[in-house]
Amino acid sequence: MSMTVNGVEIDDTFAEAFGMSGTGIIITADSLKWARIAATVATGFGTSVIGCGAECGIDKELSPEETPDGRPGVRILIFGFSPDALVPQIRNRIGQCVLTSPGSACYAGLQASQSLGLGKAPRYFGDGYQTAKKLGQSRYWRVPVMDGEFVIEEETGVTTEAVGGGNMLILGCDRAGLLETAEAAVDAIAKVDDVITPFPGGIVRSGSKVGAKYSGMFASTNHAFCPTLRGTVKSELGPDTLAVLEIVIDGLTSKAVADAMRAGLKAVTDTGAKRGVTRITAGNYGGKLGQHHYHLKELI
Amino acid sequence: MSMTVNGVEIDDTFAEAFGMSGTGIIITADSLKWARIAATVATGFGTSVIGCGAECGIDKELSPEETPDGRPGVRILIFGFSPDALVPQIRNRIGQCVLTSPGSACYAGLQASQSLGLGKAPRYFGDGYQTAKKLGQSRYWRVPVMDGEFVIEEETGVTTEAVGGGNMLILGCDRAGLLETAEAAVDAIAKVDDVITPFPGGIVRSGSKVGAKYSGMFASTNHAFCPTLRGTVKSELGPDTLAVLEIVIDGLTSKAVADAMRAGLKAVTDTGAKRGVTRITAGNYGGKLGQHHYHLKELI
Amino acid sequence: MSMTVNGVEIDDTFAEAFGMSGTGIIITADSLKWARIAATVATGFGTSVIGCGAECGIDKELSPEETPDGRPGVRILIFGFSPDALVPQIRNRIGQCVLTSPGSACYAGLQASQSLGLGKAPRYFGDGYQTAKKLGQSRYWRVPVMDGEFVIEEETGVTTEAVGGGNMLILGCDRAGLLETAEAAVDAIAKVDDVITPFPGGIVRSGSKVGAKYSGMFASTNHAFCPTLRGTVKSELGPDTLAVLEIVIDGLTSKAVADAMRAGLKAVTDTGAKRGVTRITAGNYGGKLGQHHYHLKELI
Amino acid sequence: MSMTVNGVEIDDTFAEAFGMSGTGIIITADSLKWARIAATVATGFGTSVIGCGAECGIDKELSPEETPDGRPGVRILIFGFSPDALVPQIRNRIGQCVLTSPGSACYAGLQASQSLGLGKAPRYFGDGYQTAKKLGQSRYWRVPVMDGEFVIEEETGVTTEAVGGGNMLILGCDRAGLLETAEAAVDAIAKVDDVITPFPGGIVRSGSKVGAKYSGMFASTNHAFCPTLRGTVKSELGPDTLAVLEIVIDGLTSKAVADAMRAGLKAVTDTGAKRGVTRITAGNYGGKLGQHHYHLKELI
Repeated sequence: MSMTVNGVEIDDTFAEAFGMSGTGIIITADSLKWARIAATVATGFGTSVIGCGAECGIDKELSPEETPDGRPGVRILIFGFSPDALVPQIRNRIGQCVLTSPGSACYAGLQASQSLGLGKAPRYFGDGYQTAKKLGQSRYWRVPVMDGEFVIEEETGVTTEAVGGGNMLILGCDRAGLLETAEAAVDAIAKVDDVITPFPGGIVRSGSKVGAKYSGMFASTNHAFCPTLRGTVKSELGPDTLAVLEIVIDGLTSKAVADAMRAGLKAVTDTGAKRGVTRITAGNYGGKLGQHHYHLKELI
Repeated sequence: MSMTVNGVEIDDTFAEAFGMSGTGIIITADSLKWARIAATVATGFGTSVIGCGAECGIDKELSPEETPDGRPGVRILIFGFSPDALVPQIRNRIGQCVLTSPGSACYAGLQASQSLGLGKAPRYFGDGYQTAKKLGQSRYWRVPVMDGEFVIEEETGVTTEAVGGGNMLILGCDRAGLLETAEAAVDAIAKVDDVITPFPGGIVRSGSKVGAKYSGMFASTNHAFCPTLRGTVKSELGPDTLAVLEIVIDGLTSKAVADAMRAGLKAVTDTGAKRGVTRITAGNYGGKLGQHHYHLKELI
Repeated sequence: MSMTVNGVEIDDTFAEAFGMSGTGIIITADSLKWARIAATVATGFGTSVIGCGAECGIDKELSPEETPDGRPGVRILIFGFSPDALVPQIRNRIGQCVLTSPGSACYAGLQASQSLGLGKAPRYFGDGYQTAKKLGQSRYWRVPVMDGEFVIEEETGVTTEAVGGGNMLILGCDRAGLLETAEAAVDAIAKVDDVITPFPGGIVRSGSKVGAKYSGMFASTNHAFCPTLRGTVKSELGPDTLAVLEIVIDGLTSKAVADAMRAGLKAVTDTGAKRGVTRITAGNYGGKLGQHHYHLKELI
Repeated sequence: MSMTVNGVEIDDTFAEAFGMSGTGIIITADSLKWARIAATVATGFGTSVIGCGAECGIDKELSPEETPDGRPGVRILIFGFSPDALVPQIRNRIGQCVLTSPGSACYAGLQASQSLGLGKAPRYFGDGYQTAKKLGQSRYWRVPVMDGEFVIEEETGVTTEAVGGGNMLILGCDRAGLLETAEAAVDAIAKVDDVITPFPGGIVRSGSKVGAKYSGMFASTNHAFCPTLRGTVKSELGPDTLAVLEIVIDGLTSKAVADAMRAGLKAVTDTGAKRGVTRITAGNYGGKLGQHHYHLKELI
């Protein structure tokens, strides 16, 4: 039932993903270098909502023409279980990692019908010396800091139509070639708007299954996809598979996740075969847990 | 009572810092690039123990000769209020950001009389397929993952003699020159072992004072150091001060923090005057709160 | 400079308290017994905002005439650093401890200009089977559960004018008599509306001072008030003091805290002397940290 | 396939429960009243490990002959996902709710091969004035506080063989009679050692199913067991069922959970029929998630 594209086998299966809430924030600075520094730290330790409280990443870099204050910037996305659950994440990530960063400013990075406080809490850092200004529909706070003022918009949009956990599993017979291919897929996905790949470098090598042998764990290594266990367990891996890497995608809309999966699949099938990639599959839970299903063959 | 070095005034004051607990962890990968990626994500969102749960950073890069598995690596440091408080930080930061990262492995990065679990929790991800190996005094876990095995040492050292909050405040009349000087100081501090500068890019522009006007806040902007408030409040800033930047230093020992402050002060006084730096001071709480005091003039 | 009332010495000092945010919630059930059970569990582990995330307690019991659904009820109060910080506390405390409790319902317990979600998150437990009804200005959710329906109002009020940390220290020469007197003071305070005494049974025996010898601690035992250390340290206690107990008060308004302190002081001075109470004092930080000061002699 | 006992139908099904870690702690005071107060507050807001961080409750009251210091006491149990995850729960629950409570002391309440710090962190509250004493194999800390000394044992035992989520669902045609019957079952379970019923009053009325329609939720109301939805959804409830209540049991051993379920089932079948109880069933996830299965018919 599987198909083959450019020598890469595509499983007839689907990625199962979850409804989430998501927000976008624009961080600017005097230089792109410093906008990137603040954005990288603010989105760090944000790979999994269970272990980190949120899933975070950089969506894209913005030219001075694309930002509210005419300076270079970066748009970050933050995903969580609900708008409420995003509140402390925004407060701490922006308050500790952007407010503190030299020359930074912070603006709404998503227009949506529902909004969340962005500058509402940080403004109080001003101890009464902060001032408000209104431009059009938006309200901004100017908070005195040691290198001048921290400008932060009062609110940013939040959507409850976001999706977490779009994914693909890439199998190959050459570890280095597999990693290069996965990196190419991450690069292709980075060009799609409104999505992030929250894991380190965009790639996960520790795929998990639901259920575990040990107390207090609900997930554990997906042993059927571990090459070193091929002789020991009922394996999903053929004899030529040396390694498997996963790409996980979160997006502000289901369409953005589908577009990102399509871009990633194309990158893998375009050049994967000559780097030893043999097969692509996807992770799901039988279809009953996640509200979103992405069938690989519909995305090719 | 102040002194002047190479045209930069040094206040006769001290940095007041706090006793903390600290640990070190070595992360290796197939390439330095991927060791850095894992280390950057694992230490992200770790600028302040109050807002982030821990203060984290990269201490240094390690050549293959310097790591336990002969691969390139990075040593990270994590600081918290107590060894206990470091336990969930290690579990989540390593479990979510290193275990997941392609090709990574994880080793003790500090030898100390007291130790903390490093691989104790992550090994259970192996769902019973993990195996132990003992080399010398150390025990390692091999956890099957999709790109092979995640190797992680069972324990790493922890010290309760660490110090958090060593600091210096750099004042200048040129914003760009001040930032360049602060960056040079961060670079000089990076060469000192056993310390990190946990804020974004190593620099803080939002210095705070104890106390606040608003409910529920115990700290707020240090208005006496805000240039835009010079006309409004009793200011610490002379008429020529356009901006102030702070460097905060955490170290595994008090000596390392003193060495780092010395290196930073030297970098600032070496080249600061020609970039518009006018003065260096330090932050303290009158001396009653923090267990460690670093007098600037003793470090010049 | 101190005064004496009914044989009890009153120090010429003040309690220093902090601005906080606070909310009220009414819990009803088929019987007062079950309303009390739900309220006690929902407000448990809520003595200190630092260690518990919130300070919580039962303000008062309500007769069927005083509740929205004509059933017996209890009004609880929850205090935190900011309205934002109360959001997860309400979600978890109500979701885990009231939604789950047989026959319970949940209503706004504070009318204020600012409001917080009360039923906004729990309603989703209904998985689409919940229904809304509007009565007057208020909106309610009816969530199907196994014993019928959980009714919960959509929002409750929140005030940022609340006060945390009103306090008095009661000194005595008889441990049992001191505890009886402190219990009488807690009972008197319980009759005042809009306040709680968040510690176990309303009483604290582990008063703390700011600052500590050990790493990672900002507060420690108030050694000057520890009777067993009288010979060892510079003590605040006279030779006849065998024990000291503290009462901490949180209130929705500063007036309510003052009223509660007045009621508590009266209860202590009315009957304390014959139970061996010798003196009353109060805890403060020199007046610079907390926004509210309550002078004992103005409350007698 | 179901059986009937004393007029109550018993489903041929099983309760599915999870491996957990658990610890026991003995709290004593000058009176049983104050031991109970400290224990109730320390175990409050502890119904579900997901929303509260731990599942907690009172196992039993202890006579002066049964406690280490010859005073009345209470034994509490705390359950979490792993020994590590119990560490902050013990620190905060004991530090905020027992250390603070008049006249309290704290001892190991479980002997096991593995141990956890009990007094290790709280002792530092003594700011250097605490002293250690050793009696037999155990070490105790004496921490000076305002009413004398807080005595706390250095460690308590922890088991990874604990079980969370033993359960039974009781169905009936009379709401009041059903609640009385469930209360009788909770009372019977309370007589079994080493178990708690962590929900308010021991009873849950908001049973849940895995999966949900909404973003960010993994569980939602078990609509098949909601009487008000009987006409709307595919229901598990017969026409005579007016309400359903659940009892959830956590225990230090699987045998203790089985004994508790047996005691609860006996209490329900002994007197349930005359109070309108019609049927007993149990909650499971198909058997793949939880490590422990308790078949109702084996417990009758």
